[in-house]
Amino acid sequence: MDQATVFAPATCANVAVGFDILGFALNAVGDTLSVRKTKEPGVRIKEITGTSEILPLDPALNVSGAVLLRLSEDVTPDFGFELSIHKGIPLGSGMGGSAASSVGALVAANALLEEPLSRNELLSYALLGEKIASGSPHGDNVTPCLFGGLTLTRSLDPIEVIRIPVPDDIFAVILHPHYRLDTRLSRAVLKKDLPLTEFVAQSANLAGFIAGCFTQDIPLISRSLKDVLIEPRRASLLPGFFPAKEAALSSGAIGCSISGSGPSIFAWAKGRRKAEEIREKMVSAIIQEGLTCDSWVSGINLDGAHLLS
Amino acid sequence: MDQATVFAPATCANVAVGFDILGFALNAVGDTLSVRKTKEPGVRIKEITGTSEILPLDPALNVSGAVLLRLSEDVTPDFGFELSIHKGIPLGSGMGGSAASSVGALVAANALLEEPLSRNELLSYALLGEKIASGSPHGDNVTPCLFGGLTLTRSLDPIEVIRIPVPDDIFAVILHPHYRLDTRLSRAVLKKDLPLTEFVAQSANLAGFIAGCFTQDIPLISRSLKDVLIEPRRASLLPGFFPAKEAALSSGAIGCSISGSGPSIFAWAKGRRKAEEIREKMVSAIIQEGLTCDSWVSGINLDGAHLLS
Repeated sequence: MDQATVFAPATCANVAVGFDILGFALNAVGDTLSVRKTKEPGVRIKEITGTSEILPLDPALNVSGAVLLRLSEDVTPDFGFELSIHKGIPLGSGMGGSAASSVGALVAANALLEEPLSRNELLSYALLGEKIASGSPHGDNVTPCLFGGLTLTRSLDPIEVIRIPVPDDIFAVILHPHYRLDTRLSRAVLKKDLPLTEFVAQSANLAGFIAGCFTQDIPLISRSLKDVLIEPRRASLLPGFFPAKEAALSSGAIGCSISGSGPSIFAWAKGRRKAEEIREKMVSAIIQEGLTCDSWVSGINLDGAHLLS
Repeated sequence: MDQATVFAPATCANVAVGFDILGFALNAVGDTLSVRKTKEPGVRIKEITGTSEILPLDPALNVSGAVLLRLSEDVTPDFGFELSIHKGIPLGSGMGGSAASSVGALVAANALLEEPLSRNELLSYALLGEKIASGSPHGDNVTPCLFGGLTLTRSLDPIEVIRIPVPDDIFAVILHPHYRLDTRLSRAVLKKDLPLTEFVAQSANLAGFIAGCFTQDIPLISRSLKDVLIEPRRASLLPGFFPAKEAALSSGAIGCSISGSGPSIFAWAKGRRKAEEIREKMVSAIIQEGLTCDSWVSGINLDGAHLLS
């Protein structure tokens, strides 16, 4: 094989109750990355198209390029990688764009290797990409992007990822309001220590959510899918969040919260038709706030990043 | 029926990763409470025997008596309750003694009513007992005592209890070192706010533990059954804790942590024989510290408080 093209799904991290540990992957939106073998060794980025054309072409400064440079150092292939990146995930949206950039490049390049690495081995490179992109190797976007489904990143050292079953017929609504979040502010609001009482309430919801997923108990998931710890601190930085959430919940969403650190918002719904209805209401709410947005209804991506050709 | 006798199991709250929300019930140790109908209305405590004879006989000052007084006010039976309490649970041990006192009295008295209340209804009275005993209506002892098994108290208002499946053949070791914990100190160490990073690690373990219970994945439970939040702050108040824990883990325990707020220590093991071996090693470790203790090996009590006659 001389060329591999991979779809790397967008992902929603945190999932209301699993700050830094939970994430799920989407079918309807993602990046498409092609990697072509070249005679000269090294890594080259041929082009970046799609939603985010301001990304650097210098592989050392680009997440996709940087993870392939590190991969090349370790596996020393007798050829080079030429990358073409089509970003479907809006930059800075809180939909796992950097995770898709690194995971997509890695899965594509890996397909060209004579002795491909396992997905677990690829994960350590993808975490490196997250460290480059955000300063810390958090796994809540890269693990669902790589493995698919709803994932619990129980540990990063050693890496341990657990698949949590998603009840049948769950659809996600994702809404991306068109503004950039000040990530420094977004981090700053979480710098203070937190009261134990809030942690107890959040833990109860996390445990209820996990139990609900294993037992396909949608009402339990709905009661549990509530972020009492992070969302109250970050929502004030996210114009339109509360009206959109209110619209989602009053239209029958199972739950609704911030995707990653925002500004995107996700909701869960039972069935595609209900999800479409919720999307419409959320979009209307955002527009009423004087904002514009992209939005998607998506099934949960169960396969993770995968080869298209 | 003129008299009912109930076994109310001892319980281990917190379970390392579920501070204030998780607890499990024991078969091998508990209180036995008898309630007899009397012609004169009201509540009377005839006798208290067993491990804790210093408890007050005045029903208003006694947890068992106080919850029955409240029950009587609400259901206004045309008879009174005479209580005999045999405490099998050491006082102040962190093994759910006050929960057993209120749950046992309630389940016994309830059996004498013409129209018995549901266990959910009894739970609100039992929570009142916890409030009397400790100042706050926490549910992590009363819910496993009442319902049995491993319980998640997801919410107290409204009350919501979720049963978490315990893998087959799990046995608990409980060790009660003979000293009294200074509960004010024990609470004081938790008064400070806590860093988010510790919450994240504890959440990951909680989610891993719940997932492991649903999938009967003992290695996952073992990796997850680690308290990085509360235990490090409380263990220094518990002489012998670290040597006993070290003995448990090096003998093959699945996990080991503080029972409730201590001083008792619990460990989980696969199989009764392994649990017995672990108990011996833990007891030796405690004795080497110059302490004495009681200890039990127990299956998980799956029925909760139940009638003996």
